[in-house]
Amino acid sequence: MSMHWQILGCGSAVPLPQHHPSAQILHVGGKSYLLDCGEGTQVRFKEFGVNGQQVDAIAITHLHGDHVYGLPGLLSSWHLLGRSKALTLIGPPDLEAFIRPQLELSRCWLEYPLHFVACSDEAGALVYEDAAVQIFSHPLKHSIPTWGYKVVTQRGMRRIDAEKARAAGVESCDMRRLQLGMDVVTRSGATVLNASVTLDPRPSLQFAYITDTAPLPSLVDFVRGVHVLYHESTFLTSHAELAQKSKHSTAAQAAQIAAEAEVGTLCLGHYSVRYGSSEPFVEEALELFPRVVAGYSGMRRELTLEGELQAFKRG
Amino acid sequence: MSMHWQILGCGSAVPLPQHHPSAQILHVGGKSYLLDCGEGTQVRFKEFGVNGQQVDAIAITHLHGDHVYGLPGLLSSWHLLGRSKALTLIGPPDLEAFIRPQLELSRCWLEYPLHFVACSDEAGALVYEDAAVQIFSHPLKHSIPTWGYKVVTQRGMRRIDAEKARAAGVESCDMRRLQLGMDVVTRSGATVLNASVTLDPRPSLQFAYITDTAPLPSLVDFVRGVHVLYHESTFLTSHAELAQKSKHSTAAQAAQIAAEAEVGTLCLGHYSVRYGSSEPFVEEALELFPRVVAGYSGMRRELTLEGELQAFKRG
Repeated sequence: MSMHWQILGCGSAVPLPQHHPSAQILHVGGKSYLLDCGEGTQVRFKEFGVNGQQVDAIAITHLHGDHVYGLPGLLSSWHLLGRSKALTLIGPPDLEAFIRPQLELSRCWLEYPLHFVACSDEAGALVYEDAAVQIFSHPLKHSIPTWGYKVVTQRGMRRIDAEKARAAGVESCDMRRLQLGMDVVTRSGATVLNASVTLDPRPSLQFAYITDTAPLPSLVDFVRGVHVLYHESTFLTSHAELAQKSKHSTAAQAAQIAAEAEVGTLCLGHYSVRYGSSEPFVEEALELFPRVVAGYSGMRRELTLEGELQAFKRG
Repeated sequence: MSMHWQILGCGSAVPLPQHHPSAQILHVGGKSYLLDCGEGTQVRFKEFGVNGQQVDAIAITHLHGDHVYGLPGLLSSWHLLGRSKALTLIGPPDLEAFIRPQLELSRCWLEYPLHFVACSDEAGALVYEDAAVQIFSHPLKHSIPTWGYKVVTQRGMRRIDAEKARAAGVESCDMRRLQLGMDVVTRSGATVLNASVTLDPRPSLQFAYITDTAPLPSLVDFVRGVHVLYHESTFLTSHAELAQKSKHSTAAQAAQIAAEAEVGTLCLGHYSVRYGSSEPFVEEALELFPRVVAGYSGMRRELTLEGELQAFKRG
């Protein structure tokens, strides 16, 4: 199963014309998931040609404006555009109290159901699952309650070695049993062990979205081995005190987590507007971890099992 | 007193990259006033070089997202940028219930005071006044409670005819009394009638902001003689049924109000995204009223007493 990933915004705090607040979208097997929804995210959908109306779930990290103030507008626009498909909203327990009154005071009675899932203190809790992915949450360390997310593709079924299976006498009608991991008894009465004619399912793709947070050692277990780790790096080490005070991370601190967790690729973002370029962030992180990319608004990549990122064209 | 006016957005319903939701700003005598605040308004401030942080009052017409969903972000960004000046928020009675919980759930404790003024059913009620302007509200006719606004510059003091005043024996220390409209007794005991040595104050500049509404005859009195009337024209007459159903106006209906109220200039806006150009709106309105401009995002004008609009350069 492939995972297409696009950054719609990764600037921190006050939005500016080229400094869009946080939002990312993942497309997996015909489904899609939005991570955070800063002000103006619905305009980014149009700007970057994303068909957002079919998003299956939205996971919000925390209720700071640059991560969530675009959500009421997105929900009401989908309503105006005729969305009927149910939507799951994952986030802080207060997310429902944040959204419902705004929609009600705007007299926006959505024609599609909203299901709220409240994150908890449990590390690595499963908060969402469908045919394409599982989403896990992990509490972060910020100035208000905040959660990071890990999106893991479903592994799918066992892969049949068709030649071996036929040679062993398995008939077409039993192939599904093999995919499901079951053994098969042939017409002649022989038992074909599943493992003898199938391969393991392809491994899952794993993507972690970690923002906003001070450096958090417990993250290492949560993001261990993910193919891509997006980790906030609001500051450079030259502003380490400011990072500590505001409960954010530096590029070096993000790289330290990436190195300890042996992730595939580290993607940086959530840069403070005080910096003119993301290059020093990458340089700082490369001192501690070899595979670093600078996230930017509009960046589109395909995740691969090898942990390498492939650029892909607009679909 | 001059009035500088800028449109930050005048597209209806769903925001798009070049279809910004409603927001306008007026600058009068060192003060400034924001009318509506659709999503992304804070980014328009930056885009158009507007110093928004000093806005004195914000008047919200109604709680539909395309008129108010940019307000929480604007308020919290001003907080992050260190604003300390008090802010008056004028709007529907529910405006405070709309804003407070969002800021509280984001743990955004503003360092500057917010004063809420709730509009009422009273036609032409005075809802705000300071040294530069008076703002009046008028209930409109839309699918949810909605108010239009009229911003009127303070007339200032009587203008002294200095030559006549000196000739009549008025001393410098009494000039202020003349400006305030009082008569003056000279050293020789003669009474100088105010009207004999002063001119009336310059008339007020008047700007009306009317959106969203179905055609409303009572508006004629409210906007009579204003120098500029911004009146929504979401539709053309070819979609008159749709306008009626959604409680919006056509360009012709806006022009009808402008003609009956004998305004200086009619500015159209709040176009439905279904139209590719504003030209047909102007053409339709010109059939009924001779002075029509098509509002657009970024438009800057100076209002004059003659009701003509002067383009002005970025300040």
